[in-house]
Amino acid sequence: MPRHPRKTDFPVSNVRRYLEPGPVVLVSSRRQGQDNVMTLGWHTVLEFTPSLVGLMIAGGNHSFGMIRGSGACVINLPTVDLVDAVVGIGNTTGAAVDKFARFGLTAVDGKAVDAPLLDECHACFECRLHDDAMVDRYNLFVFEVVKAHVAPVPKRPRTLHYTGNGVFMTAGKAISRRSRFRPELLD
Amino acid sequence: MPRHPRKTDFPVSNVRRYLEPGPVVLVSSRRQGQDNVMTLGWHTVLEFTPSLVGLMIAGGNHSFGMIRGSGACVINLPTVDLVDAVVGIGNTTGAAVDKFARFGLTAVDGKAVDAPLLDECHACFECRLHDDAMVDRYNLFVFEVVKAHVAPVPKRPRTLHYTGNGVFMTAGKAISRRSRFRPELLD
Repeated sequence: MPRHPRKTDFPVSNVRRYLEPGPVVLVSSRRQGQDNVMTLGWHTVLEFTPSLVGLMIAGGNHSFGMIRGSGACVINLPTVDLVDAVVGIGNTTGAAVDKFARFGLTAVDGKAVDAPLLDECHACFECRLHDDAMVDRYNLFVFEVVKAHVAPVPKRPRTLHYTGNGVFMTAGKAISRRSRFRPELLD
Repeated sequence: MPRHPRKTDFPVSNVRRYLEPGPVVLVSSRRQGQDNVMTLGWHTVLEFTPSLVGLMIAGGNHSFGMIRGSGACVINLPTVDLVDAVVGIGNTTGAAVDKFARFGLTAVDGKAVDAPLLDECHACFECRLHDDAMVDRYNLFVFEVVKAHVAPVPKRPRTLHYTGNGVFMTAGKAISRRSRFRPELLD
């Protein structure tokens, strides 16, 4: 894996390609001059167009107030080479630690929102807050992905999928059943 | 894989072990004497206790009305041996087809809710509707898992993770970083 995968524009209506398989993601944010990043495993795609994603951000996270205040974040897709950063980020708090410095991450300014992209990740999805009606009851934020950056290679990134208890499942081989799908269900 | 994995009781507060990695699931339901099942990839864990899960069930599905009416469903976890059933279920409608007969699936009555478990699956989570406030806007149902049945072997089931366009990623090998977690974040 390149240390800084070269990314190109990607259609926002197709981010399900990377998020629907359920990887752990790194959610980065910026507020009042401070950058932060958290590890997050509880998310779901909600709609293709607009490109909506639900993120459960527990209220105890330093990122919670930053993101609620700024109304923006970036969903970054780490691969197995970043597993130790993923774990470290999930076990520290941005209230006490500059996680970018601690874990050797490179912040690149977003193009559509005021939040940092993590250059080491395979994909970065810039998000704007779409609906916070479910935040008080479930800590569930609905974001719209407004710009997507994805590395074209490798085609199938080896993502991390958290199973609890300190163990990650990693992405295995692909199986195609394309010929058995109704055409309207294919890209 | 056994054709009918023998399952035992599993703590509902720990279903994230199987759902957080983001597998495609089969959601079964029963209403007015009819059983149905759909394929679903858009879901997220929302809480440990009560054990809450959000499922995005598009309004065009025959299951949508059944589940909204009955207030119950079962989330079943298929493994790679069931890939053709998963695809077939996702490409047909219960309005026209008895999917249990068509795809050779065995319905077992739930113990806590009036909905069928799919005996061929690795795990079955019986769910009761907890909150439908987000259904009108996002087709997002919040369910409480009230009873969980899981096959103890294999310990790491080879689940399917949909990437769109007819292609599934399958679960690969596990990586443990348990020693680097704060104790309160471990099971």
